[in-house]
Amino acid sequence: MACCDYPIAAADCDGAFTVDASRLTFGRGCLAEVGDRAGALGLRRVALFSDAVVAGLPIFAKARDSLVAAGLDVVAYTDVHVEPTDASFRDAARFARECNPDGYVSLGGGSVIDTCKAANLYATHPADLLTYVNAPIGEGKPVPGPLKPHIACPTTAGTGSEVTGIAIFDLVSMSAKTGIAAPALRPTEALVDPDCTASLPREVVAAAGLDVLSHALESYTARPYVRRRAAARPSLRPMSQGANPWSDLGCREALRVLGQFLERAVNDASDTQAREEMMWAATLAGIAFGNAGVHAPHGMAYAVAGLVRDFRPSGYPVDEPLVPHGMAVILNAPSSFRFTAEVSPERHLEGARLLGADTQGAGASDAGEVLAGELIRIMRAVGMPNGLGGVGYTDDDVAALTEGAYPQQRLLQNAPREMSKPVLADLFRQAMRYW
Amino acid sequence: MACCDYPIAAADCDGAFTVDASRLTFGRGCLAEVGDRAGALGLRRVALFSDAVVAGLPIFAKARDSLVAAGLDVVAYTDVHVEPTDASFRDAARFARECNPDGYVSLGGGSVIDTCKAANLYATHPADLLTYVNAPIGEGKPVPGPLKPHIACPTTAGTGSEVTGIAIFDLVSMSAKTGIAAPALRPTEALVDPDCTASLPREVVAAAGLDVLSHALESYTARPYVRRRAAARPSLRPMSQGANPWSDLGCREALRVLGQFLERAVNDASDTQAREEMMWAATLAGIAFGNAGVHAPHGMAYAVAGLVRDFRPSGYPVDEPLVPHGMAVILNAPSSFRFTAEVSPERHLEGARLLGADTQGAGASDAGEVLAGELIRIMRAVGMPNGLGGVGYTDDDVAALTEGAYPQQRLLQNAPREMSKPVLADLFRQAMRYW
Repeated sequence: MACCDYPIAAADCDGAFTVDASRLTFGRGCLAEVGDRAGALGLRRVALFSDAVVAGLPIFAKARDSLVAAGLDVVAYTDVHVEPTDASFRDAARFARECNPDGYVSLGGGSVIDTCKAANLYATHPADLLTYVNAPIGEGKPVPGPLKPHIACPTTAGTGSEVTGIAIFDLVSMSAKTGIAAPALRPTEALVDPDCTASLPREVVAAAGLDVLSHALESYTARPYVRRRAAARPSLRPMSQGANPWSDLGCREALRVLGQFLERAVNDASDTQAREEMMWAATLAGIAFGNAGVHAPHGMAYAVAGLVRDFRPSGYPVDEPLVPHGMAVILNAPSSFRFTAEVSPERHLEGARLLGADTQGAGASDAGEVLAGELIRIMRAVGMPNGLGGVGYTDDDVAALTEGAYPQQRLLQNAPREMSKPVLADLFRQAMRYW
Repeated sequence: MACCDYPIAAADCDGAFTVDASRLTFGRGCLAEVGDRAGALGLRRVALFSDAVVAGLPIFAKARDSLVAAGLDVVAYTDVHVEPTDASFRDAARFARECNPDGYVSLGGGSVIDTCKAANLYATHPADLLTYVNAPIGEGKPVPGPLKPHIACPTTAGTGSEVTGIAIFDLVSMSAKTGIAAPALRPTEALVDPDCTASLPREVVAAAGLDVLSHALESYTARPYVRRRAAARPSLRPMSQGANPWSDLGCREALRVLGQFLERAVNDASDTQAREEMMWAATLAGIAFGNAGVHAPHGMAYAVAGLVRDFRPSGYPVDEPLVPHGMAVILNAPSSFRFTAEVSPERHLEGARLLGADTQGAGASDAGEVLAGELIRIMRAVGMPNGLGGVGYTDDDVAALTEGAYPQQRLLQNAPREMSKPVLADLFRQAMRYW
């Protein structure tokens, strides 16, 4: 037995894990620090990324004013596409190349922060879009060097993008979500200001909060690092290295906070304490999943979001069909955790207990059902659709969903059980309807 | 009420906290990664710092071989003084200037890692030794820029120096311990390999482990960040920013692990699990105290170590009188926590509970006594001296100890209650004898 109840590494597997985090500042009002911090990084000309909705909010003016007051030259880009596409990534990169700033500030949800990462990447190291995109969809080439400084300021308690080296987009021609994953993409700093979430509609708080919840649960139940084949060289250890004592710590605390505050944050926009706690949970879960990696529910969500036909969620300012990311994730979660529970029933039970379920008397064979039941209870409490059927899918879509999810091998191989095509098909089928 | 039960910031106080951590890798055997990691940092010529004892151990050869195998030119400096002095810091800096490496590897306890930080600092930004030393003893000038890459490999589960920006030494002319504290001093990476502690004598495991314990307890009970006066500019927020939700997480987990494994690690050198858990606790507590800061027991320890007359601890390979750092710290701890408990009794009780004390039925007014009692029990179990009297001090030394501790304002101001000279004198008096 090694540290924190992990077994000794299996043959050819990794015996160590790496913790790598960027600087972050957390606290109500800390968005006002952005100008001073950009100046401290030596920046003079900053590209400020946002989307059209956030650009109209007082927080956007607050960020811009802080940058201007610090003597910086600010050029705004507010055309970020919610749920970015290859086309919108290219447009942002074109802006960044033409603007040629010496650093970036992003203010928004995951779409904004991810787009800013991509713009920084392709302006700094120009290449075809697919060059750095994860294989097998892209070429998976390593990012050749550091990017320019980037201060990420999240406005949702959700993606954790501000502390990860991941950027996600829709490859429209393939109806698939995919992404770029590289340590160089991690923002230099994050300013996590819970006040930025004050104006979010309840639907966004719910979906983003369930994304956080799944980050924590997936990282906590991911294949343990001591079961992942060691990299050719230790310095090439992947970011998604599997569950480990470090990520466990953040996951458990995030789940405890979510169990206490998610429903409060959704149901009462004036509950500033609940929204602050949700932001803290999102930060911890972001650090954890940036270190351990997520698995099946996220891998499956790429297909759920990519193949959407005509579902239009309320609360989201978009004209086109869309399954919000957190919703696309959580709809797969009960089905996935029923399947993975047999590998680590104690972790599945602990996850349920931290979320608030009564696990007294529950044994290993109950773990999947207990956790799925708690997730379904929370989904209903915050107004999620009833399974994939609730966003327009039927059993006839299972084959296409499976084909859409299967290429997400970076995520699927991080699951604690093998995610073959028949398994994925079965999990999608079981996710059609939960109550 | 703000996040994680912290109150809203008081007037003029800080409303946010910053988390800044360097990369670390944890796991048995990971010392062998040092060559690959040094190469990945672009290094070609490396100064390898250690002390005479470690230089004779197989782990030293392992580190050197790994660096050589990666094609690096290695120049060893094994003259580190255990409990460094101004003279030994100067000697190491002279070596570094003459050697002119493009990066550093340190392999040893806190003395080695701290000496390597200082050598890197003064070789990169040459200045009189006192230039960067904390005021009021030194000039407290800011470090003018980044240092060269430094990979720190700790061989004790103790100081946490591998993840902090602090370097401590004896200013012999003043019989005082003091130090340098600057973010730039934080090593670029840490390789935390529990196998490096395999050959440590039990006395060293005990003293280092109690240093870890006090890092966690002091950071957990430090003045909360929302009670610290805000810095003139947010980017100048100090490293010792007071207790906050991030440091709390590491403190609580470190205390839980210590309660379970400290005595096992001391009493059985073959208990590799216990030694690995201690290394993990040291890492977590190091990250926490590098972020929150320690307070009275550490501030007082500088005087206890600096004024030593003829105490010679067993298990330490030195010819001169010495109170090992962890011992100098823990001897003040029961006395200090009895005094600070009234400010945050719930945290003092929680600390005692995590260490293993039965706190059922204990109320706020019992908190100091319950925690002090648990500390005394642990000190006896691992063979600590009976208070300051056990290392040669008497009531006649209280005035000198007080004068020695009082200049440690960086630490004392991080305490939850005012540490005036009369208070310090009383705490030293109460620390003379515990059983």
